[in-house]
Amino acid sequence: MRDEFRADLQIVSQLLVDMAEGVRAAMHRATRGLLKADREASEAVIARDAEIDDLYRQVEERVCDLLARQAPVASDLRAMITALHVAADLERMGDLADHVAKTALRRHPSPAVPAELRPVFTDMAAIADRMAEKIAKVLASPDADLAAELDRDDDAMDDLHKSLFGVLLGEDWPYGVETAIDATLLGRFYERFADHAVNAGEQVVYLITGESSPSPN
Amino acid sequence: MRDEFRADLQIVSQLLVDMAEGVRAAMHRATRGLLKADREASEAVIARDAEIDDLYRQVEERVCDLLARQAPVASDLRAMITALHVAADLERMGDLADHVAKTALRRHPSPAVPAELRPVFTDMAAIADRMAEKIAKVLASPDADLAAELDRDDDAMDDLHKSLFGVLLGEDWPYGVETAIDATLLGRFYERFADHAVNAGEQVVYLITGESSPSPN
Repeated sequence: MRDEFRADLQIVSQLLVDMAEGVRAAMHRATRGLLKADREASEAVIARDAEIDDLYRQVEERVCDLLARQAPVASDLRAMITALHVAADLERMGDLADHVAKTALRRHPSPAVPAELRPVFTDMAAIADRMAEKIAKVLASPDADLAAELDRDDDAMDDLHKSLFGVLLGEDWPYGVETAIDATLLGRFYERFADHAVNAGEQVVYLITGESSPSPN
Repeated sequence: MRDEFRADLQIVSQLLVDMAEGVRAAMHRATRGLLKADREASEAVIARDAEIDDLYRQVEERVCDLLARQAPVASDLRAMITALHVAADLERMGDLADHVAKTALRRHPSPAVPAELRPVFTDMAAIADRMAEKIAKVLASPDADLAAELDRDDDAMDDLHKSLFGVLLGEDWPYGVETAIDATLLGRFYERFADHAVNAGEQVVYLITGESSPSPN
């Protein structure tokens, strides 16, 4: 029974790693679509969001099946509930990559992001990529220190998000309201991507250490 | 055992109803804070978000306790997993009310929403209120028809959201970029509030009818 549980848990963990790698690739592609006006990249993100949704459903089914067959308690039960939370965060991160891709396509072949904002979005995308990479790593091999780094990454993301508004509200912003709306939404998509990565990381830390109940946010 | 399960499920259901009523009141207050520059209303939303978060944790604890003690299977197990999903959607709706309140306070005593946009935000808020009311009702007394109405409400919300951009992008938009950024974010908060209400409604329908696996979105 115990060995069977471990084997099932391993399958769930691998599904979560696949999800994390999928959303990392999705946001990476979405950023290319956005900053290089690469239509194929944007379209691939949208087409492949269904794969991430499918992995999400597989996690749910596996967890429900496991709860029904094995009736785990204590830390094993907590691991199952945590898997559901992490899967929900990762699924939402995939949606946010999808939103970035759709925003890029809406302006194609014009760039949705003007030259003045390319540096800040390049940096936001780099942090998003790093955070998704860390989530995939801590899911594959639990590491509370690595998971805790996500908080610092999120602080850096928040700083970039603020500097984005600084550019938009600068006296010399030449692009008008439409470009500001796009940039506002895009900024929010990257920032929410980071928030979900932090949430997922907190869940994993909670699972590893048993410390600090993750607060909803 | 069966009676005990029913009694526990009833407690979880009541917690979800309390959450739904809490987020309805929160968004109602947040809208008053926004449209009437009512500082106390905005501050109350922020102060009381912790109550919604606390209810969320109570749902989680109850569900985990119930899974551990009773090891439900089949539809009972599904009801537990659904309760977790609905609680997560409601918790997020509370956060979105909190974001509206914070946006209003950031501009206080100036209004964050100029006169031209008051009608569209008044309408969005009315739909948000109606949707939160329906979620509370279907959680208190399952009603698949009422839950299904949430989809139509969400369509109306999406139409309003589009008309908001129409105003922002009109040739005679006189307020500049800062107000457009606020309006863009506020529009997104109301629209996401509605999305989460739809998700929660789909979960309840799924539970009542067993039909149509809710797709993540």
